Parts: sequence; C-alpha cells; structure tokens
Amino acid sequence: MKQDQASQKKPHVVIVGAGFGGLEAAKALSCTAVDVTLIDRHNYHLFQPLLYQVATAALTPAEIAAPIRHVVRKAKNIRVFMDNVSHIDTIKKTVLCDADRRISYDYLILATGARHSYFGRDEWESIAPGLKTIDDAFELRQRILTAFEQAEMEMDKDKRQAWLNFVIIGAGPTGVELAGAIAELARHSLTHDFRNITPKCARIILVDSGARVLAAFDEVLSAKAQKHLEDLGVNVILNTMVKHLSDDHVMLGDERTDCRTAIWAAGVQASPAGNWISAETDRTGRIFVESDLTVPGQPDIYAVGDTAAFTPEGAERPLPGIAPVAKKMGQYAARSILARVRNRKLPAFSYRDYGSMATIGRNKAIADFKGWKTSGFTGWILWSLAHVYFLIGFRSRLIVALNWAWAYLTWERGVRLITGRIRPTTKTTKQEQKNAA
Amino acid sequence: MKQDQASQKKPHVVIVGAGFGGLEAAKALSCTAVDVTLIDRHNYHLFQPLLYQVATAALTPAEIAAPIRHVVRKAKNIRVFMDNVSHIDTIKKTVLCDADRRISYDYLILATGARHSYFGRDEWESIAPGLKTIDDAFELRQRILTAFEQAEMEMDKDKRQAWLNFVIIGAGPTGVELAGAIAELARHSLTHDFRNITPKCARIILVDSGARVLAAFDEVLSAKAQKHLEDLGVNVILNTMVKHLSDDHVMLGDERTDCRTAIWAAGVQASPAGNWISAETDRTGRIFVESDLTVPGQPDIYAVGDTAAFTPEGAERPLPGIAPVAKKMGQYAARSILARVRNRKLPAFSYRDYGSMATIGRNKAIADFKGWKTSGFTGWILWSLAHVYFLIGFRSRLIVALNWAWAYLTWERGVRLITGRIRPTTKTTKQEQKNAA
Repeated sequence: MKQDQASQKKPHVVIVGAGFGGLEAAKALSCTAVDVTLIDRHNYHLFQPLLYQVATAALTPAEIAAPIRHVVRKAKNIRVFMDNVSHIDTIKKTVLCDADRRISYDYLILATGARHSYFGRDEWESIAPGLKTIDDAFELRQRILTAFEQAEMEMDKDKRQAWLNFVIIGAGPTGVELAGAIAELARHSLTHDFRNITPKCARIILVDSGARVLAAFDEVLSAKAQKHLEDLGVNVILNTMVKHLSDDHVMLGDERTDCRTAIWAAGVQASPAGNWISAETDRTGRIFVESDLTVPGQPDIYAVGDTAAFTPEGAERPLPGIAPVAKKMGQYAARSILARVRNRKLPAFSYRDYGSMATIGRNKAIADFKGWKTSGFTGWILWSLAHVYFLIGFRSRLIVALNWAWAYLTWERGVRLITGRIRPTTKTTKQEQKNAA
Repeated sequence: MKQDQASQKKPHVVIVGAGFGGLEAAKALSCTAVDVTLIDRHNYHLFQPLLYQVATAALTPAEIAAPIRHVVRKAKNIRVFMDNVSHIDTIKKTVLCDADRRISYDYLILATGARHSYFGRDEWESIAPGLKTIDDAFELRQRILTAFEQAEMEMDKDKRQAWLNFVIIGAGPTGVELAGAIAELARHSLTHDFRNITPKCARIILVDSGARVLAAFDEVLSAKAQKHLEDLGVNVILNTMVKHLSDDHVMLGDERTDCRTAIWAAGVQASPAGNWISAETDRTGRIFVESDLTVPGQPDIYAVGDTAAFTPEGAERPLPGIAPVAKKMGQYAARSILARVRNRKLPAFSYRDYGSMATIGRNKAIADFKGWKTSGFTGWILWSLAHVYFLIGFRSRLIVALNWAWAYLTWERGVRLITGRIRPTTKTTKQEQKNAA
C-alpha cells in the first residue's frame, strides 16, 4: 500500500517505539523541516518507573500513561500509527508492519525497548511474570490481590500460608520497589479488611543471586536499602539462585518454599530490533552503535535507549537502561538528523550522569547525586518530587500528586480491583491442569 | 470443608452478590446480632450507572468501583468471600462455591443481578458486546479506540469509513449514553489528534426496534433526548430491527451498513439464581417474590434487585431494574431478617419512586421528578450531582468530580489507553479466521 505520497518531499523520519527514547526524538523533531511517522504497538506512552505502583494497586494505568497522539497533537508534521513492526528492509529503506503495511523512511530511529529475560528458562514466564507493560501490571495486580482473597477463604493452615508467601526474584530497582509495596499492602489492608488472616501471616521474600540489593548503588546505600526493606518486614535472601519455580512452590537454592505468587524482576533482554537489521548486538540483544548512535555500516539508522549498547569513551560498561539515558539518546538522534538535513554534523554523543534514585516504600528511598548521598525520608521526598515532575501531562501530575497525598494520609490503596480473567486457584494448579490434559 | 464453626451461634445470613442490592443488605446488617457472609465473583462493588464512561475513556475503573471488603471493613460481623456460586442446596441450606467450598446459611439473600440478553442470538455476543462489567467496559474501550487507530492507518476510503461507523443497538439509557459519549469522543479527539480522519467522517448510529428513545420516560422527554442526540451528531434510527450482525457489517432492517464496531444495549436477562433454587421466574429470569421479597415456599430465601420480579399492589408491571429499587429491596430484606430474628414481622415491601434521570452528553440530560420535568443543562447538572453523590467513598467522589471538572474545561478524555489483547483488525476479520480454521 502507498502510505507516503504526501511525505515524499521532506525527508521522512520513522521512529519505532514511543517509550522515553522514541517520544523524546519525536518531540525534538516536532514542527521542523522533516516529516515524522511514530509507530508503537500501543497507543500510549508509559511512564515505566511508576508501573510497580499499578501492579500494587496504588495508581491506575491512566495516571502513568498518556495517548501518544495526544502528546504530539500540536506537531502537524508528526503522524502516529498504532502498529506492529515485523521487519525492516534496509535495502528498500522500508518498515514492514501488520496487514502488509509498508512505510518507507529516509532516516530510521529504533527505540523499541526491552522485555524481561528468563535466561533461557522461558517456561518460568507464566509462573513468575515480569513487569514491563500495563498488561503485565494488571496481571501482577490480579495475582497479588487474588492471593489475599484465596488466603482469606482457605481453612487449611499450610495452604493458606502458601497464598500469603510472595517471592520476588531479583533485587534491582523493580524487585525492591515491588517487595516494599507488597509488604505495605499486606501490612495495611490485612489489618482492617480481612477476618481470617493478619499482617503477621504474610511473608514477602526478595531473593537475588548477588551479594546485595540495588547493586548499581554503592555499598553504603545498598545496606541502607536492605535495612529499609527489613523494617517493612521483607525477608531479603542474597547469594541465592532460584533453582526451580512452579505454581505452588519455589526452590531457593536447596530450600523449598510453598508459594502461590512469584514475580520476576531479574533480567532484561532487548527487543529483536537488532535482528530486523542484521546488526551486531551484545549478549542482551542491544545493538552496538557508533559515537553518533548510528548503526555501523547503516548510517541512516539510529538505535537509542534500551535498544542501543553505547559505551562512552574511557568507560568500562555501556550506559544503563534507564529513562534519562534513553531521553538524551532520543534527543541526540533527532538533532543529528536535523543537522544532516542541513549538511552539518553534530559532535559525538555524550551523557552527563546527574545521579540516581530508588525507592523502597513510604518515607524510604535512597539517592546518590554524584557524591551527595541521602536516604530515608529526604530521599523519598526527592524521589517523589522527581517522579511527579517527570510524569507526562499536567493532569496526570496533579492527579498522581493528589492520589499520593491521599494515600499518604490514609494508608489507603485506591485501585484494589481484580479485573480480567480469574486464574485457576485452589481447585487445580496450572500444573495439575496440564497433567490432567 | 467446614467454614462456619465460629458462626454457629448467631443466625448466619449469606448474601450472594455485592451489587446495589447485596451491598445495601450487608450495610443494613453491619454490627447487628447476625453473622454475615457476603459472596461476589469480583472483589469490588461497581457503580454501574457510570460504566459507560469507562467504556468511552472518560473515567478509570477505580473511580467507579470500590473493594467490597474495604466498604464493610468496620463491620466485624461481615466476612467477604470472592467466590463463584455454582448451586444452592435448599434442603441442607448450603451455598456451593468453587473448589467445593460449602457455606451453610440460616437466611439467604440472592442479589445476583443481570447480564445482557441477545434474545436467543448468542452468537452476536462476540460481535456486539454489551456493557455490564468492568471487563466489558475494557473490551468496548479497546474496540472504540482501536477503530479510530485503524481508520487513521487505512488508506482505502470505504474500509476507513467502516472503521468510523459505530452502531449501538438499543436506545435505552445505556445505548443513549454510549451514543452520546462516542459522538463527543469522535468530535473532539478527531479534531486535534488525528491526521488522516476528521470529525465529519465518524458516523454514530443508534438503532431501536421501538418508536422512541428512552421509552421509559414520557414522550416529551423522549423527544428532547432525541433532539439532544441529533445535536451531537448521532444518527437515530427507530422502528428498525437488527436482522444480521457480522464483524464488518450490520443489516438494519434491509439496509446494509459497513461497520467494524457494534455495541449491544438492547436487553437484559437475570442471573441463573432462579434455577439454583428451582423457583418460578418471569420471561427474563427474574424470580417472582412474595410481598416480603421472599421466594414462595422458601421463606428463608430473599431475592432482591434485578434478581426479583416484584409487582407492587395495583401496578401493571414489576419494578424496573434500577439501582434505587435494588438498594431499597436490599435494605428491606436485611431489616426483615433482623425483625424475624427478634420474632417480629415487617409490613410488606413498598417502593416510593422519586423520579428518574438519563444523560445524553455534555450539558444534556433529561429528568422527571414525579411531574417536574427538566432537560438540557439543568437536567445535566442534577444528573452530575446525583451521580457524584451516590458514588461510594469520599475519595472516588472527589476524584471523579475533579476529573469531570477537568474534562468539562478542556474537553479532554484522560483514559484513552488501549490495553489487553489487541483484536484482529484489517488483516483478517474474525469470520475470515473462522473460515480459515
């Protein structure tokens, strides 16, 4: 199909993915001398750092997501397609989408992000889902809330405890946030809302194969974070591999724990964009890029954010897969294209790291701003302000801030709804169903 | 399994369903001399009158739903089970649930509500879903928003128009609300957010086999409502039967309309509660009840709300399936049980009708308060105040009010997220898939 007749005159930039990298690129190209097509599988941009709050019933998806076309509505040179990219023809310079739609490009920005990785144990995905999309968050929310409901009805003591054991695998930022949030949820909803179970019953286990939580931070802050978690009642188990996962138990090293809810927060894998263009990638699928973020040998294709492995000069490791890096990369790719359209050239990409933060729970966060380290309440206030500030759209910011203020004052979680297909529960585990089939 | 040891001393009331009827009954029994078990398939009470706003992306589910156990958290004599009732043993006075859970009762209140009815054409359900649950609302929201996305990408003029035709079947309150809301959505989001389609393209068709919209109101208000709809750009087609429905077209009488989004708002059918207890029901499955809302011959079982067919003395028809009726019935059943526990007896159930309202869109509603009729802006203000007031929980009320104020000032719809599994679209229709299989 011919999609591009109107846009043949100006250079046409196609951006695949409207996460932090892709959306920043689109914004930087808005109302400029190029035509832009922004393609995403979803119709919304997701503020992923707060997704764990959807999974734990504190925020609704609408509070942390905004329709992409609404964000760029004023840029008449940008059109938005909700579509699935299946391949890229680098010879014909064409993006292939669903229903055989073809979109030709002059410049291409790949900003397709990452999914979680099960390190080859893909069968674990249905048992211990990860948290990357809104649908993931719904799934986790349903499982977590359903576990409490099942525990309340279960009269057998051991079976009840299995519903109240939550195992979170991976003690990076997502794992730590989830563990803290589930601990708070258990402690506070169980106090008033349930009759047969009490807060003391719930056991939240955070397990990691490494020696400390939040290993990307320095040791002092790591230790503070672990202390915060333990204050919330989280059971932190380090230096331990998960050897087996099933619907009703996990093996942490050689120890068996009965458990009906397991969550995966242990690893990420880049999207298959590298395969689409036959580019060289690192172990996690990120495309190695030049100093201007283009793909070696394919100067019209840029890779940004979680799709790119970019190692700054003199650094040992590539830049991490975090929102500020993705945004800067997206902006750079856009500016680089605009420069080339005018026959100019930008200096190489560089990234200035202002520091990083991680939250554990109410009043508890850690922050490291290039030497100035803080934790506890101060860290939490900084974390809250930064996250509300960066949320897209004034409305979301206002509503999220109100929601947080309300939750802070009342300990209430407003979104404790179990929606979607209800999972099989006490009657048969998935394994039993499989065996029966 | 033994579930009831602790509750053998006090009379045990089991309520099935936590809609308007069941929840009001539970509230009326809170902190009294009976033990209560409230069972619902979901963990939330849903404020169904505003569900169409979730389906049309104006509100999020959390704004119109509240966890049941949170609502009754202060009543320590009430326990809440999220469970599926499969049958009732009226001899042993036991409710049978999933996983072979059995709950014995002294008194039983059936408040199990209604679903939509396809009048024997059940194959239409997947083509034209109805709107009764949060999952229904997600499904409709996904279909409506996806239709605009597909239209934006479709270059074939006729196929594009099929995506922009919306057919709503049934011009009762739900159909009218949906038609008005979709018209507003089309008119306002298409103006700024899309590049290839414009508001004029979208066609919203409201079809009914009867002679007027909102037939439960008097003719003057019906005519006003139709005028309001037409002002919004809705195409109202009356005295017309839907003869055929498929994924890509509908037959309205003998006229074919290409259309990718059809919505069912034409009929309701009570839950199967009547079958569980082998009671006599009317054509739509509602249980005929005595003047004290008990089931004939089964004086310990009450039926309330949409589950009951109760015709007041001297009236021609049973009370309608609306929230105020269900609430009053639930309250009455609870008070009747409390009276019987004290060996007293209440006078027969009676219902005082204060009037009714229906909304069409921004600034447009009709209201009839026993003679005092109003429409347009005044009706809309009354409708808005009443609905915010009746929403459960201060927090929901505040957030909904803010959301409405914001939407009113900006025309913005905050929840335009397409979540869940994406339906097959241009590539193959469901019919084509079926044929291929």
